[in-house]
Amino acid sequence: MDSERFLCGPCPVARGLAHVGDAWSNLILRDAGLGLRRFDEFQKSLGIAPNILARRLKALTDAGMLEKRRYSERPPRDEYVLTERGRDYLPVLHALGAWGARHFGKGEVMRLVDTESSRAIEPVVVDRVSGRPTRELSLRTELP
Amino acid sequence: MDSERFLCGPCPVARGLAHVGDAWSNLILRDAGLGLRRFDEFQKSLGIAPNILARRLKALTDAGMLEKRRYSERPPRDEYVLTERGRDYLPVLHALGAWGARHFGKGEVMRLVDTESSRAIEPVVVDRVSGRPTRELSLRTELP
Repeated sequence: MDSERFLCGPCPVARGLAHVGDAWSNLILRDAGLGLRRFDEFQKSLGIAPNILARRLKALTDAGMLEKRRYSERPPRDEYVLTERGRDYLPVLHALGAWGARHFGKGEVMRLVDTESSRAIEPVVVDRVSGRPTRELSLRTELP
Repeated sequence: MDSERFLCGPCPVARGLAHVGDAWSNLILRDAGLGLRRFDEFQKSLGIAPNILARRLKALTDAGMLEKRRYSERPPRDEYVLTERGRDYLPVLHALGAWGARHFGKGEVMRLVDTESSRAIEPVVVDRVSGRPTRELSLRTELP
């Protein structure tokens, strides 16, 4: 994928995908949203090769979605924390997970629970103004 | 990425990503949502190599997100139409596009317009029951 081409195009979906258009990046962000921060934690959770994980963490940091913070000087060790931009992406994963559970949810699948109410939530994408699910709308794209 | 491992795991995000965890698949689904159906239309829109496009169309068809329909017998030609499962994925792209526009929206970016009201919509992911944006909730995952 020619990221530069998509980054400069007018489609915000493509621009987003230039940064989060692979499965590993999404799973790293998922784990970061669940509180994981350290290289070893991500590696253990994902079973990902260290060189691939290092590359993805760097790309997400360069994209401003993770922030690298040194937590040990000797030996030098960094942890990766979601930025505002990274945290703002989590609802996309909530919607993706809801879709995954609806269509590929055979057997046991995790659910998202609101820690305040201890109630399972059901993510749905709506138009902020009308509150209507975007799924029910007839939509087109246009330049402003 | 070892798709099988993710397909069988308990995380619905990972299960979804096993099918839509690459940028091309997402862009094909975006285009299908905008009404594109034919191989040539996708190729022209995406500037994608024919062999990659063919592979992605087959994978999305195998995943039950697109349905192949023959529209010409001589020469044999198929078009690809979103299934219920594929259409149900579009809101994820709406949320992704909204995030992309917020964070990488420099210059001109397309917006989503409701064809009924001709109003630009603002996709947001909320909990269906409470209507609260999932972004504002403190969430954890659990097995039911």
